[in-house]
Amino acid sequence: MCVCVITLSCYILSLVLDSWVLVSAHRMKRPWAGQVERPPEEHIPRYDPNNPLCPGNKRANGEGNPDYDSTFVFENDFPALQPDAPDPGSEQDPLFQSKAARGVCKVMCFHPWSDVTLPLMKKEEVVKVIDKWAELVEELGTIYPWVQIFENKGAMMGCSNPHPHCQVWASNFLPNEPALSDRCQRAYYQKHGEPMLLQYAKREAEKKERVVVESSDWLAVVPYWATWPYQTLLLPRRHVLRMSDLTTEEREGLAAIMKRLLTKYDNLFEVSFPYSMGWHGAPTGPYLKEDNSHWQLHAHYYPPLLRSATVKKFMVGYEMLAQEQRDLTPEQVIHLCTCIYTEQRT
Amino acid sequence: MCVCVITLSCYILSLVLDSWVLVSAHRMKRPWAGQVERPPEEHIPRYDPNNPLCPGNKRANGEGNPDYDSTFVFENDFPALQPDAPDPGSEQDPLFQSKAARGVCKVMCFHPWSDVTLPLMKKEEVVKVIDKWAELVEELGTIYPWVQIFENKGAMMGCSNPHPHCQVWASNFLPNEPALSDRCQRAYYQKHGEPMLLQYAKREAEKKERVVVESSDWLAVVPYWATWPYQTLLLPRRHVLRMSDLTTEEREGLAAIMKRLLTKYDNLFEVSFPYSMGWHGAPTGPYLKEDNSHWQLHAHYYPPLLRSATVKKFMVGYEMLAQEQRDLTPEQVIHLCTCIYTEQRT
Ligand SMILES: O=P(O)(O)O[C@H]1O[C@H](CO)[C@@H](O)[C@H](O)[C@H]1O
Ligand SMILES: O=P(O)(O)O[C@H]1O[C@H](CO)[C@@H](O)[C@H](O)[C@H]1O
Repeated sequence: MCVCVITLSCYILSLVLDSWVLVSAHRMKRPWAGQVERPPEEHIPRYDPNNPLCPGNKRANGEGNPDYDSTFVFENDFPALQPDAPDPGSEQDPLFQSKAARGVCKVMCFHPWSDVTLPLMKKEEVVKVIDKWAELVEELGTIYPWVQIFENKGAMMGCSNPHPHCQVWASNFLPNEPALSDRCQRAYYQKHGEPMLLQYAKREAEKKERVVVESSDWLAVVPYWATWPYQTLLLPRRHVLRMSDLTTEEREGLAAIMKRLLTKYDNLFEVSFPYSMGWHGAPTGPYLKEDNSHWQLHAHYYPPLLRSATVKKFMVGYEMLAQEQRDLTPEQVIHLCTCIYTEQRT
Repeated sequence: MCVCVITLSCYILSLVLDSWVLVSAHRMKRPWAGQVERPPEEHIPRYDPNNPLCPGNKRANGEGNPDYDSTFVFENDFPALQPDAPDPGSEQDPLFQSKAARGVCKVMCFHPWSDVTLPLMKKEEVVKVIDKWAELVEELGTIYPWVQIFENKGAMMGCSNPHPHCQVWASNFLPNEPALSDRCQRAYYQKHGEPMLLQYAKREAEKKERVVVESSDWLAVVPYWATWPYQTLLLPRRHVLRMSDLTTEEREGLAAIMKRLLTKYDNLFEVSFPYSMGWHGAPTGPYLKEDNSHWQLHAHYYPPLLRSATVKKFMVGYEMLAQEQRDLTPEQVIHLCTCIYTEQRT
């Protein structure tokens, strides 16, 4: 048992966002009388005739899904990005700047069954998901500068369908977060001659203070600058620019480490852990012709829970208006995890 | 009645954050089968013997509140910032950067009664709140570079006590958001010779496309770059650097327009509207000696609701990993507001 008596407050630099995180090591002591979330639904039927994501069912636009038995990709019926968005008009005014956002939004089912999640799928099935991710990055990346793969898991994270799936949004522009990350990685590379996140991964692997899971090819850490309590950064140990550059062996290793990481998450509060996650790799489209050696492929996991399966961290007030703030240190989190984590989902 | 057939997608520049917002004008059409929030509690007792914020009651640290009859300020019992935080040690490694975060966290009750909110308080009572805000900015600003006043309203926004109150966190550093805003305002001023937000307010007042409420001294708009559906920006029409520079007349005008703005929010979905709000003004402490003419005092209101009193906008997935995205345009929001808004709370 560990009683933490640290009263440290500091602010920590996020390497990928060039911004600071306020860390208070003692805020978990405050009592919580605020909002409590509903725990996720426990009994999801394997097949639901009314679920538009299940094999063979009809979707909102009237189209029918095939009887798929692995992954299945289709166009989002309510896309935020479309290939033919008109120009919003050439406002020259510096106070009112806008540009046409063009792109595509796809949905990708991971599995024909609604009652599984990535950690509960077979390793070979997860490899199929990774292969499809790589294929989509390659395919959409021929045209678009950015292909964002992301998964919203759990109702708490705005997911409105329990069927295991993710989304892929490709855009004709580099969105804010990757643009910032690109700038940070480039600046570091210019100064130090090595990819920033590759050096960072090496240092974390040596320090072992924030490592959650590791294998010969992959590493998952609670990053030094984590804002969400149980945030993790997952990345290959080799210098890899994009998903599509991963070898067969690395894809198998990724499937294995993803299963381990997500099992740990599920075990932490004994609940199917909610999160948003997504992949960041070197930009594509016109950027394919440029030198992107400063980039290192990585995934961010942003889980909202703080205290239990039903009490989340609220990123509000100070966090929205001033700076993100966390209530315990990344090292305290790792400590908690080491106590609680087991390898098998209970 | 208005049926919107716009299918525009564009991305819009936020003047204060130097980042882009993806705007999709047609995403409100998608059906919502996701998480539904609990509506706020309706019957809050005026006085609750167990509520640590009520007059005369005991707080977590054993101290007793006075029998206050207006505003009441005290030190947060679980402060994220403390005046004497030790130095985290001089890590020279560029990959692991941290600094001591020093400061104070205060809580400020608006009123002795738990069953009122700012729009339900008398104008003179709201003026007292504004006077106290100004006093705290002045007092804490003698030492600290940044004094963040913010209100988390509603359980949905992480507020764990229904008693009307806000928080004031002062820090020995300029947090990310104000640092960015400072940079943006400074760059504009250097280029155009006028404060950015003052010019912006003038243009919005002329255009009248995004104005929610206005008076002779104040203006509230859904900013061109709003990310939250009903986000607003409230600012004086005169060039004002800080809260403490407001004249008596302007404080009365502010109380009046705050009451009008918040009444409109409450009427929109007929619910005590949840939000996080906060004030940004020219930095203080060491910055008091510098020229801050590029600054214009303003408040941001970030309300989470999207469709109704119980369906919020989820800033997840794409928003966390790529770029903030909104499902309808600011102008569509104003249109909705004009139909629904009335001046009296029902
Ligand atoms: O200090 P409080 O009101 O308990 O806490 C609330 O506001 C803080 C500052 O915005 C947030 O960090 C917390 O997540 C939120 O629950
Ligand atoms: O498209 P979906 O899954 O309905 O929507 C979900 O993910 C989107 C992208 O992160 C968000 O904009 C929505 O707020 C969220 O509910």
